[in-house]
Amino acid sequence: MSLNNWESSREEKVSEIEEILKSYLPKQEGFQKVILEAMEYSLMAGGKRLRPMLMLETYRMFGGKSDIIRPFAAAQEMIHTYSLVHDDLPAMDNDEFRRGRRTTHVVYGEDMGILAGDALLNYAFETAATAFEMEPESAPVIGKAIAILAGKAGVYGMIGGQVVDVSSSGRQIEREKLDFIYALKTGALIESSMMIGAVLAGASKDEIRTIERIASKVGLAFQIQDDILDVTSTTDELGKPVHSDEKNEKTTYVTLRGLEQAKQDVEVISEEALTLLEGLPVANPFLTRLLRELIHRKK
Amino acid sequence: MSLNNWESSREEKVSEIEEILKSYLPKQEGFQKVILEAMEYSLMAGGKRLRPMLMLETYRMFGGKSDIIRPFAAAQEMIHTYSLVHDDLPAMDNDEFRRGRRTTHVVYGEDMGILAGDALLNYAFETAATAFEMEPESAPVIGKAIAILAGKAGVYGMIGGQVVDVSSSGRQIEREKLDFIYALKTGALIESSMMIGAVLAGASKDEIRTIERIASKVGLAFQIQDDILDVTSTTDELGKPVHSDEKNEKTTYVTLRGLEQAKQDVEVISEEALTLLEGLPVANPFLTRLLRELIHRKK
Repeated sequence: MSLNNWESSREEKVSEIEEILKSYLPKQEGFQKVILEAMEYSLMAGGKRLRPMLMLETYRMFGGKSDIIRPFAAAQEMIHTYSLVHDDLPAMDNDEFRRGRRTTHVVYGEDMGILAGDALLNYAFETAATAFEMEPESAPVIGKAIAILAGKAGVYGMIGGQVVDVSSSGRQIEREKLDFIYALKTGALIESSMMIGAVLAGASKDEIRTIERIASKVGLAFQIQDDILDVTSTTDELGKPVHSDEKNEKTTYVTLRGLEQAKQDVEVISEEALTLLEGLPVANPFLTRLLRELIHRKK
Repeated sequence: MSLNNWESSREEKVSEIEEILKSYLPKQEGFQKVILEAMEYSLMAGGKRLRPMLMLETYRMFGGKSDIIRPFAAAQEMIHTYSLVHDDLPAMDNDEFRRGRRTTHVVYGEDMGILAGDALLNYAFETAATAFEMEPESAPVIGKAIAILAGKAGVYGMIGGQVVDVSSSGRQIEREKLDFIYALKTGALIESSMMIGAVLAGASKDEIRTIERIASKVGLAFQIQDDILDVTSTTDELGKPVHSDEKNEKTTYVTLRGLEQAKQDVEVISEEALTLLEGLPVANPFLTRLLRELIHRKK
């Protein structure tokens, strides 16, 4: 696939996800209209849509053909978005810009920022649960997917990582703790994305376990690349403030390992993920390429 | 049942729920220990445990006998608790005391207050989803219960009510909006509690609809009683600051309807709920008594 073809094919995939997200957004009416607006404002602010994309493509790789993947793809992006909305709050990272736009609490007020995050998290489960009505006969596998969605987003997943990240801010931490933060804060949602794709498509237990390992490596590589871009990119290119790690005195792969070693880490870990992916009895060229592109991403 | 018997029987039910909650609390270990502590601090702070109690007793009324009700009872109380934790935040009601103890963000910091609320909401769904593994053959009905749990807690339920409540603070509102706030902010979780009990016990669609109507009236009566206690009780009795509505310039049933009319409203609405309850083909004397006591509660 040429670079141009690849980029237009990736844009198509993003449009597909935007369309899915829109179809699950609540109608903006009623006394509580302001929160429905705030949810849309934060959810439709663009972004790479990496998590739903990984979910959809893993689902397709294992031969999934049903629409029940759609509410889960939307739910995953809602969870990712809520975590950003709450991360940006004054009591957390206190960020005023995200993806080139004012953050949710800046536009709607801090109280609505808290409630919009809560609403998105809750609505993720509300959305995922619509799959039960779509395909009642798949209830057991939908149940498994919901358990993964919740588990990887919670205290043993993303939130656990955020907690350690927040409480480590402004102090040096060791490699073990940094890996814990990265595995949970970033890795966990990548894992659930790919695992849910596999589970809903009927992959075997062994295949799901391999997918989890792949995703874990992808998540780590992705986060280290984030550290790298924070020091090598510009605010314009990235659509968010650079050097924020330095400002927040955060330990990152770049501060712990140095820029060149961090770059090499990304390459090594990504290659490990791709090798595992190639070992599977199924394949999806788009997914393979997507994981490969993560190494070279500029934003 | 004599008053003494009733009170000891209600205490037993509370102990049963405390035991269920404890059994679902995450172990306090790992780098993220602080959030697990904050979750326990807020969840185990006492309280009436009204929602899980209503769920368990409705489940029993419809002949439910399985343990799958346990994770749902815990999940419901986690959702109720997260909403209190976030409600108490400085950007929301800014309350420093709750149930006679310092609020979660006062003890653990504002960032951890936000994250502990998120963690409890997420863990609620994680907990409820354990029911799929407990009883795989009940997956369809468990799926329905999860949809109700999420739906009633979200933007068309509790959060919707909180949003309108927060944005109405400090200004006079009309009866229609007040009823909307009460139906959603307080009513919705009472509804899901009783509905989930009915659904998991295999009640019919008509019965579930009647239960929803009963719960809606119970929720409204409960909230009006809250308004009444805020002006008639003392901080010692209530375990939280009184006159908080006046402080926050909130429109309540007492300010809109006057104290005596509000008291009468509680009686009328509660009697309507009890009449509907008595019309069901099943009965649970404890549940009937519990709903009756709500009228006369002092805290």
